[in-house]
Amino acid sequence: MTLSLIFAAWIVTAFHVEIAVADRSTYIIHMDKSFMPKTFASHHEWYSATVSSLDLTDKTSSETAKSTPELLYAYDNAMHGFSAVLSFEELQELQKSTGFVTAYPDKVVTLDTTHTFEFLSLNTESGLWPASNYGKDVIVGMIDSGIWPESQSFNDDGMTEVPARWKGVCQAGDSFNSSMCNRKLVGARYFSRGSQAANPQASRDGNSPRDTFGHGTHTSSTVAGNYVEGVSFFGYAKGTARGIAPRARVAMYKVTGSSGIGSDILAGMDQAIADGVDLISISMGINRTPLYEDPIAIAAFAAMEKGVLVSSSAGNEGPDPMSLHNGTPWMLTVGASTIDRQFSAILTLGNGVSIIAWSQFPANALLVDVPLVYNETLLACNSSELFTEATGKIVICNDEFGDLRTQIDQVTSSEAAGAIFISNNSQYTEVGDLPCPGIVTNPIYTAMLINYAKSTVNPTVTMKFQQDFLGAKPAPTVAFYSSRGPSPSYPSILKPDLIAPGSKVLAAWAPITPAASIGSNLDLSSDYNAISGTSMACPHASGVAALLKGAHPEWSPAAIRSAMMTTASQLDNTYGQIRDNGNSLTYATPLAMGAGQIDPNKALDPGLIYDTSAQDYVNHLCSMNFSSKQILAITRSSNYICSNVSTDLNYPSFMAFFNNNTPSTVHEFRRTVTNFGDGAATYRAKLTVPPGTLISVTPDTLTFSDKYESLSFSLSIDSHQMKGTTSFGSLVWEDDGAKHTVRSPIVAYKMV
Amino acid sequence: MTLSLIFAAWIVTAFHVEIAVADRSTYIIHMDKSFMPKTFASHHEWYSATVSSLDLTDKTSSETAKSTPELLYAYDNAMHGFSAVLSFEELQELQKSTGFVTAYPDKVVTLDTTHTFEFLSLNTESGLWPASNYGKDVIVGMIDSGIWPESQSFNDDGMTEVPARWKGVCQAGDSFNSSMCNRKLVGARYFSRGSQAANPQASRDGNSPRDTFGHGTHTSSTVAGNYVEGVSFFGYAKGTARGIAPRARVAMYKVTGSSGIGSDILAGMDQAIADGVDLISISMGINRTPLYEDPIAIAAFAAMEKGVLVSSSAGNEGPDPMSLHNGTPWMLTVGASTIDRQFSAILTLGNGVSIIAWSQFPANALLVDVPLVYNETLLACNSSELFTEATGKIVICNDEFGDLRTQIDQVTSSEAAGAIFISNNSQYTEVGDLPCPGIVTNPIYTAMLINYAKSTVNPTVTMKFQQDFLGAKPAPTVAFYSSRGPSPSYPSILKPDLIAPGSKVLAAWAPITPAASIGSNLDLSSDYNAISGTSMACPHASGVAALLKGAHPEWSPAAIRSAMMTTASQLDNTYGQIRDNGNSLTYATPLAMGAGQIDPNKALDPGLIYDTSAQDYVNHLCSMNFSSKQILAITRSSNYICSNVSTDLNYPSFMAFFNNNTPSTVHEFRRTVTNFGDGAATYRAKLTVPPGTLISVTPDTLTFSDKYESLSFSLSIDSHQMKGTTSFGSLVWEDDGAKHTVRSPIVAYKMV
Repeated sequence: MTLSLIFAAWIVTAFHVEIAVADRSTYIIHMDKSFMPKTFASHHEWYSATVSSLDLTDKTSSETAKSTPELLYAYDNAMHGFSAVLSFEELQELQKSTGFVTAYPDKVVTLDTTHTFEFLSLNTESGLWPASNYGKDVIVGMIDSGIWPESQSFNDDGMTEVPARWKGVCQAGDSFNSSMCNRKLVGARYFSRGSQAANPQASRDGNSPRDTFGHGTHTSSTVAGNYVEGVSFFGYAKGTARGIAPRARVAMYKVTGSSGIGSDILAGMDQAIADGVDLISISMGINRTPLYEDPIAIAAFAAMEKGVLVSSSAGNEGPDPMSLHNGTPWMLTVGASTIDRQFSAILTLGNGVSIIAWSQFPANALLVDVPLVYNETLLACNSSELFTEATGKIVICNDEFGDLRTQIDQVTSSEAAGAIFISNNSQYTEVGDLPCPGIVTNPIYTAMLINYAKSTVNPTVTMKFQQDFLGAKPAPTVAFYSSRGPSPSYPSILKPDLIAPGSKVLAAWAPITPAASIGSNLDLSSDYNAISGTSMACPHASGVAALLKGAHPEWSPAAIRSAMMTTASQLDNTYGQIRDNGNSLTYATPLAMGAGQIDPNKALDPGLIYDTSAQDYVNHLCSMNFSSKQILAITRSSNYICSNVSTDLNYPSFMAFFNNNTPSTVHEFRRTVTNFGDGAATYRAKLTVPPGTLISVTPDTLTFSDKYESLSFSLSIDSHQMKGTTSFGSLVWEDDGAKHTVRSPIVAYKMV
Repeated sequence: MTLSLIFAAWIVTAFHVEIAVADRSTYIIHMDKSFMPKTFASHHEWYSATVSSLDLTDKTSSETAKSTPELLYAYDNAMHGFSAVLSFEELQELQKSTGFVTAYPDKVVTLDTTHTFEFLSLNTESGLWPASNYGKDVIVGMIDSGIWPESQSFNDDGMTEVPARWKGVCQAGDSFNSSMCNRKLVGARYFSRGSQAANPQASRDGNSPRDTFGHGTHTSSTVAGNYVEGVSFFGYAKGTARGIAPRARVAMYKVTGSSGIGSDILAGMDQAIADGVDLISISMGINRTPLYEDPIAIAAFAAMEKGVLVSSSAGNEGPDPMSLHNGTPWMLTVGASTIDRQFSAILTLGNGVSIIAWSQFPANALLVDVPLVYNETLLACNSSELFTEATGKIVICNDEFGDLRTQIDQVTSSEAAGAIFISNNSQYTEVGDLPCPGIVTNPIYTAMLINYAKSTVNPTVTMKFQQDFLGAKPAPTVAFYSSRGPSPSYPSILKPDLIAPGSKVLAAWAPITPAASIGSNLDLSSDYNAISGTSMACPHASGVAALLKGAHPEWSPAAIRSAMMTTASQLDNTYGQIRDNGNSLTYATPLAMGAGQIDPNKALDPGLIYDTSAQDYVNHLCSMNFSSKQILAITRSSNYICSNVSTDLNYPSFMAFFNNNTPSTVHEFRRTVTNFGDGAATYRAKLTVPPGTLISVTPDTLTFSDKYESLSFSLSIDSHQMKGTTSFGSLVWEDDGAKHTVRSPIVAYKMV
């Protein structure tokens, strides 16, 4: 059995690695530390002795040392236990050991990618940036593919001394020495034993914190990159790059090279917690795995206990429902949205008419008054006849008659000077590239283009590349690829929590990985790349969380998440509801966007907070169908007991599941909100009732006499008249003068 | 008969336009204005009436109006006279007119093209920049191909108001309106009647001051471009662009579109003088034309009389001797030199060895650990067999077995990923381009490359593009293409006067003209281009002259030139004599570099000045084999008479011509120097005697008691023991403590 972890930016080919090595596989083993015999000085000794004791091999045989059971990592912070390469027999033996809790096979990870700060209204005049001192002294642990330390985004100009509390190190490795860290990149480590055990033949690029891929460099600079002037994606998106929290610090935990695996991730998160990070950002996840076997969920529980929020990507498996990963109650789960910047070219016809259309051809191609070829029977752009006629000219392709990607490839390998691609494939332009000079333009212009081409004997066109069109509408939309709820591993909590910019995000890159190509055989390098994915959305949310941590160091992970969710926006730049690019631009539901698009400045002052403790999560876990061993695998400690089972979790969103087989059509939630505003305040409930349901909130007015006072309320949903399987609404707590609006999405969901 | 004007940057194809239109041609006619009948209110009326009177056509015939004689321009400043489209019969008739001086056919022009400010030691701390206030309020008239007004180099940030004395205008034309001028670009006009008469079918891009070519935009920004951050040539030469005189102002006189012609140049220079420019920069010239028929030489005389220096390019016909144009005594004639910046790529072999080599592939191609193909029998890189083997790989080409340009073209059209070109063709790298990923490296590395390629089964290479190598040695050298003296039109004065940076100069460009290409069918646009030619050297000298004019507004054109020549440098960055890239890097002679490489800061304080008046030039002209009408064509005024014929011209260099047929082997020069230092000073002569000659200077000490005092001396050369045809030396006047060294080159030249 192999489960795949999702760790895939859209420019990246997903990978799957088989785990079996000879007859042994890697397992992650949870142990109850309270059973550790006093004879062992450390948990590491205990685990090591345990693994050694499993060695059932015939010592007289000629088998190599390699085929003995092998301890990979001992974990102590993210979980209690270890990972080891074991045969099935050794695993069975292990299960008899004192303190053994559970074990499961290691899992393969699949990876999930700047005007974005502007688009999010971050500014130097007011709001979250100045209030947080730009994230000064917040250390963000990045669990990713490593880092390119020479990137200008990690220069430490203007950074103050590293806080003395920091315990991280700068680990040397291949092409990486320990002097490569600085006041911006405060730590770098790598964890590759798991992937090397899974695939000993794989290249050893994992033996270094260096990012040979680009993903970790991109996400790290999105969270906390320093200011770098004059960057662009081959002339597009020109400007000054900066992270969302430009004064926060980065600690890289490289857990994946050309492939990633759960045991390494667990080791990276374990170390990040030990080193004292303030926040973890992880743009990867494991699909289709139960919570108690998900190393990220398990490590995130430990992090949460230590006050460390884990911000994660929802995955790129959308728009199918139930496609998300990291849908874990104690994590922040981030979906991706589009932004209002479109990489563009200006097309001007010989008659003077101009249109702006999508393009990201990565060079300033000079196409001035180039002959236009229009041949009605060849709009499919798949005819060699057409391309003979089109040498040095511009062709028109219409994807009504063929696949856009195929048409682009055919023009790229032709001698045509370029092409006008007519297509309404907005998903392509959200993630695609363009290796030939050309534009992709909407079919609304088809008639105009063809009329012009027919109107004159020598039609010509001019294309001006490297244009940025700001103000594209509607924006944000939910990115089509953004994975959707409900959470397969925990459907009773609404996921994703929110959305953040994820499409065509410009950030730093590893220059040894192609960032674009021209034609069929020229790859281009760049220090900055524009890529798309929930991997790029997550670090935007992580950056905002870092700023909130900087502004409010005392806030718990749940409080930070609550502030981000209850202040999120549901409106786009047309002042209409946010739409879903994965569903023909219909209105996005909370299963696509959670509470909505993050709004950093509003999150600074949320009014009320839905706070949640570790015990609260355990109480809710106890209400689910988990065994006590499964719960222990997550909580690591039998101090947590299911004494206070609760179907309520104090979460800032409402997910009501109804089952056709059960008689109850009513779901009642209990919630507690804490006043984080200044002093006394009165909040009134404003309901948007999900169609077909009846809702009541009791009480419907909350009167706080002091800051930090907590008040409870209940919300009940009666779904007996509900048509269809889903219905969506919201609860808003609003104080006098609407100084604060504390909004939670409500989802009524009928299981079928 | 057509003569070609040289106006050619190296990226530009030279052009030749036949002048004949039906039976008429354009002629330039010189008139003696003192003969103008009083009945005419203006010279224009007179010329117009004169042309009308020539109309010999049968008025009853059906010929179109086009075939009557046509006045193109009336000239009044640069010369007295006009240009007109005339038949041979009409021209004969004209010659009978009152006041007629001379006439000759119009001539076709061929066109001649930044770290350079640094390489010239211009700096903000001391010297010519601060002393001249960066050229503030100096207006430079550019006689060129027009201007791209939107270029950031012509923004007027930081520019003060235009001086009230300025009389220029901003002339509207195609794609150019009169609001496109500003405080930096203070005027723009166009002159196209001559070229349209010569070639009525040509495109009308001349009907506008707009530069559709790039040449005039490049030269203007080299002289006086404003500061522009973050420019580059496709990633090479990254930095802040600026002109040599960044606060001077530009007035563009567009005299050439896709073709240029003498009558238009004359009109442009005529207008520039009338508008009140302080300096004229003209990067074009006419080859093989006598002085009295050279519109540039004629207009330059008028400019000189008004105190306006004309700085010009020597041409790109080197390294042949006697190949230069603009070798006119009253002009500054500028040759081209190389600079110490080499556009480069770093080549790293799989064994870790790196070399820096020339490249200017215009994109950041990603070539990391790419397989290297080495096949001994295919080093000519002209075999399709090789290129099949080389798909996606790097090939090695050696120009020992074929022409480098051909090899580059073949790799470009192949499917190879790139190439290592082994070549010692330093001339190619001075002017050439590279449309395929690759490097050109010296044969000294041949053995190393081949040994590596043979040393391993899978040799690989990595190339890192967009590198700048500063400190290339030796630099400067004389550019191989820079035209050489003696001056065919005036061999008794040493030309060129000096050299200035001309190779791979980065400056502004017209983005509609290709600046580079990738592969066989992708042209690239850029707002900045790096090109090579004496066209690029001239504006460097013009910029320095503008700074000197700003620092010393009272200096005559001859004084400015004298200061630049006598302070020029003969040393390169190896502290050896400047070498000649057109002659296998042997030492450059004064026939290649004149007085040497301009040294702006030293020119600010030259010590002594060789000044020259208009009458001095006439006196010298009178000693040459010119008729009085030919002299009048130049001087425009019979006020200049040959009353004082002199074989001496007070020029800051010494050119001694000896003829085997004449008995004299001795040449005696008389010169007068004026003390421009502060107060009393004593200068002593230091001679470097040209081998094989005897030289004496009398007196050999000059004692000045005051500033502006003039003293004379004589220098005699006896060549009777001279072997060969040329011998070179110098005279240096040096004051106490060598505060000033006033150097003049000496050339002894035996006519054969």
